[in-house]
Amino acid sequence: MTTTDKASTRDRLLDAAAELSYREGVSIGVEALCRAAGVSKRSMYQLFASKDEVLAASLEQRLPGYTARLSPPEDSGTPRENVLYVFEALEKASAEPDYRGCPYLAALIELKDPEHPANLVAREAKETLKTVFRVQAELGGARDPEFLARQLMLVFDGASARAGARVESLDGLTTETVTALLDAAGM
Amino acid sequence: MTTTDKASTRDRLLDAAAELSYREGVSIGVEALCRAAGVSKRSMYQLFASKDEVLAASLEQRLPGYTARLSPPEDSGTPRENVLYVFEALEKASAEPDYRGCPYLAALIELKDPEHPANLVAREAKETLKTVFRVQAELGGARDPEFLARQLMLVFDGASARAGARVESLDGLTTETVTALLDAAGM
Repeated sequence: MTTTDKASTRDRLLDAAAELSYREGVSIGVEALCRAAGVSKRSMYQLFASKDEVLAASLEQRLPGYTARLSPPEDSGTPRENVLYVFEALEKASAEPDYRGCPYLAALIELKDPEHPANLVAREAKETLKTVFRVQAELGGARDPEFLARQLMLVFDGASARAGARVESLDGLTTETVTALLDAAGM
Repeated sequence: MTTTDKASTRDRLLDAAAELSYREGVSIGVEALCRAAGVSKRSMYQLFASKDEVLAASLEQRLPGYTARLSPPEDSGTPRENVLYVFEALEKASAEPDYRGCPYLAALIELKDPEHPANLVAREAKETLKTVFRVQAELGGARDPEFLARQLMLVFDGASARAGARVESLDGLTTETVTALLDAAGM
């Protein structure tokens, strides 16, 4: 393969892995993945050691975009507004018809093996969001910023799991819950 | 098969399905399930139309025990204490080394198909717990019992997802969070 071919093959694999795993779960087969990407198995194995590595790379590639969609425009609000912005963005995303919850939380739950390469990427994604919350909690003068960040992650992951599984529609549920937690933390 | 044989075969299948799916996920194969149960595929198909039906039956069979472990002894506490009891029980369970989160939440997330028979059982389990919360919220005079019950489910599912995936250890995290929400609801 030429360098350009490799890049295109890689992109098609990553896109197919992201889409298939989000819609159908992480236990997609190599055959189905290659078929959806329009790539031969031989080409896949020239670029990746395993299907697990494709999945991990696809989750990693999408992480900056995922984080950006949840992040408030820089220097735009108070720490309290910035925290609430994340949950407004989550509620908005969860109303989309193809919403299936946070792909990183789903990967953590579906991949029981903590050594799976995609599990590591998913942990990193969760840690990144928790850090965003902790920084805002510190700036906002919360009594215990780390504790508040952990509480906000409970709400975020509970909400994305329940809305993704279609047992909840959020419409103000998380923002009101988070408001109560921010108040209790003195922020 | 005699009636006794059938009962024993059924029990072995349900136990194996519950254990395997909790440890490794719901996408267990028929072969692995029958091997773990010590049952032939022929015997399985004499009792169940499909592996999906075995999984649904195993989740259904365990629901009363699951609910009982989370429920306070009858007439023992105030509504506020009864709600907190559920979260104390969750925190205690999550500290067990083989804890992998709520099996019903995992089934909902792993089975993307809302028509899957196990998905229906899992929804029912979630609805049952939400009803427990709503009844206590009504008894405790919460401002909006249904809203408070939905908030408590966010915390419950967020906590079981995160503790099950080993990105959180609860130790007082949910009880303190729930206390803030009960206070905010005037209960």
